[in-house]
Amino acid sequence: MPKSKTVPVQKKIAQTAKDVHSKILKSKSPTMVTPIRSLSNVKYHVKTGYFEMLGKSKQRTLTVNTVKTFAQTLKIMSLAKELIDTDDMATKREAYYISKNWGKAGFSEQSESDTIIDDVEAMFGVNREQLKFTPEEKGGDIAGRLVVIDSDAKGRKLKIDCTKFGSGAYSIPTEVEHLQFQSKAKFILAIETAGMFQRLLKYDYWDKTKCILISMGGVPTRACRRFIRRLTDQLKIPVYAFVDGDPYGYFNIYRTLKVGSGNAAHMNRFFCVPSVSFLGVTPQDIIDYKLPTHPLKEVDIKRAKDALKNDPFVKHHKPWQKAINHMLKMGVRVEQQAFAKHGLDFVVNKYLPLKLKNVSKFLP
Amino acid sequence: MPKSKTVPVQKKIAQTAKDVHSKILKSKSPTMVTPIRSLSNVKYHVKTGYFEMLGKSKQRTLTVNTVKTFAQTLKIMSLAKELIDTDDMATKREAYYISKNWGKAGFSEQSESDTIIDDVEAMFGVNREQLKFTPEEKGGDIAGRLVVIDSDAKGRKLKIDCTKFGSGAYSIPTEVEHLQFQSKAKFILAIETAGMFQRLLKYDYWDKTKCILISMGGVPTRACRRFIRRLTDQLKIPVYAFVDGDPYGYFNIYRTLKVGSGNAAHMNRFFCVPSVSFLGVTPQDIIDYKLPTHPLKEVDIKRAKDALKNDPFVKHHKPWQKAINHMLKMGVRVEQQAFAKHGLDFVVNKYLPLKLKNVSKFLP
Repeated sequence: MPKSKTVPVQKKIAQTAKDVHSKILKSKSPTMVTPIRSLSNVKYHVKTGYFEMLGKSKQRTLTVNTVKTFAQTLKIMSLAKELIDTDDMATKREAYYISKNWGKAGFSEQSESDTIIDDVEAMFGVNREQLKFTPEEKGGDIAGRLVVIDSDAKGRKLKIDCTKFGSGAYSIPTEVEHLQFQSKAKFILAIETAGMFQRLLKYDYWDKTKCILISMGGVPTRACRRFIRRLTDQLKIPVYAFVDGDPYGYFNIYRTLKVGSGNAAHMNRFFCVPSVSFLGVTPQDIIDYKLPTHPLKEVDIKRAKDALKNDPFVKHHKPWQKAINHMLKMGVRVEQQAFAKHGLDFVVNKYLPLKLKNVSKFLP
Repeated sequence: MPKSKTVPVQKKIAQTAKDVHSKILKSKSPTMVTPIRSLSNVKYHVKTGYFEMLGKSKQRTLTVNTVKTFAQTLKIMSLAKELIDTDDMATKREAYYISKNWGKAGFSEQSESDTIIDDVEAMFGVNREQLKFTPEEKGGDIAGRLVVIDSDAKGRKLKIDCTKFGSGAYSIPTEVEHLQFQSKAKFILAIETAGMFQRLLKYDYWDKTKCILISMGGVPTRACRRFIRRLTDQLKIPVYAFVDGDPYGYFNIYRTLKVGSGNAAHMNRFFCVPSVSFLGVTPQDIIDYKLPTHPLKEVDIKRAKDALKNDPFVKHHKPWQKAINHMLKMGVRVEQQAFAKHGLDFVVNKYLPLKLKNVSKFLP
């Protein structure tokens, strides 16, 4: 994150607060500028590989009507600075509760404090984690050829060897900015379900193929996405996604992992993993591997048609349009555990090796 | 699990299959007996500390009408035996897909195979994990004074030291029967939210108090419950639950953890943790610690009233009836992160130490 390194975020916060302060001293109306966070202010940037913000912004001027949100924004900025200065952190839920001591500036719903936190994050061009607001949700388990370097509460260095967890795994913390990595892995496999992750562990897959396995457990959390992103930035090895063959797997999981989402575009550059490619399960796999399927649900069909029409990522990539049309024509979806039909070891001994011989054919 | 050790489950399966086979050879109708799995066949056994099955059972006789489920039951038994013999495992989802190769005995929905798996588990008086059917869901993170002993895929022993994960954690595998433990911890704290778990990690709580922290991430998964149960069986140290102060926390999380649930009573004896007691957040804590609250929702009120009327656990424990009536009278619920109102360190430096001075006053 070069930008945040140039000027530390706590300095940026102090500068913004100073501007507000000096305007007030001059009896002028202080203002704060925040980028607009919505799909209308986003484009799919093919070179960087993710949804990027366009230049639209909103200006918040201190008036009688805006005084509460203005004060709340300053209080959140102040809380962030305090958390950074004391090397502490707060979950978004905790931040909401802390405000209960702010008198009239207290939030009455968490959705209000979340919005302000998002605004502040966009204002300073950093992700929430750098402001020390951490997500509530954990998520993401790791096994395989990776050493994570962390420190304990007393500051002593810890080397966490993810080959040493047996049937268990390393659970990614909610905050991952401080982690360092060591690895000679050949690739990263990001897996949708915990069941498939456990299957690959059981069959020693990461050892045989010298890879890092990541269980996303459905849609990857922010911490999980940021972890994978930092991993790829540092290790420069390929990442492949292995998810269910349905619109939820294609768009909610894979598309979000790769290019981010529209309503959180201001932080896509920290969270998306543009280098990921799609191993499977593809609609073509259903035919090639004679997989058992389920009929597409109404919501699947709607989601697929929406994506063809409105999703800038899908509209850019012909192979995805082809795959989605193929799925719609067959009218079926497929799960990654469907390979069990051919025996429990099929996915490890047949499907994955065959697929990995032709990574250039992976969907983008 | 003394019962399952006396006669290994694979032998029980072979015996049942033999009985069926010999009856067929004698041209008699073979039968299989399964306990009835419902609240009507359950009582709250105060001494053992959980919901236990009464003696009601159903008999499945091979007839024209039952031939399909009869065949499916035998196939699931056979699959379980194969998994045990080869030291493999299958998720319930995989078991369903495997059946796609059973011709007319194939399941058309996973709910069908799940039911048969539950029946087989009840029939042999073992838990599904002993039949090598593992849950889909992972869940449960550990940090603190615990060494987990596992082995890698090549059978080499691994000692996993849960004091060495920094801000991360050890993620409990889906299958936990084979794990061994070493610990000199003084107690176990089972926490509802990942956010609170991260807070306690951040403030070095497990090191200061020599405990084991477990993040349940909402309602604990089977693997998480079984892990805690095995831990308490072996370590003989107290377990305290720290969850939100609402009916969901009281019944769906705590009650399930402690005494199990009605519809899965046949396996409560493996999964419930009768020794757990309730640290908080209690309705009384709201007053004692001046906590910010939210109004009870319709569904909360309904759940609380249902529990007072129908839940054998609540009907047995007067302190719980008192607490629930107190909550209903105040009309509010409280979250475990509400302590943040008094500062982020309040929960670690004030609330938990004060509470732990009076464990005898914990709700049962």
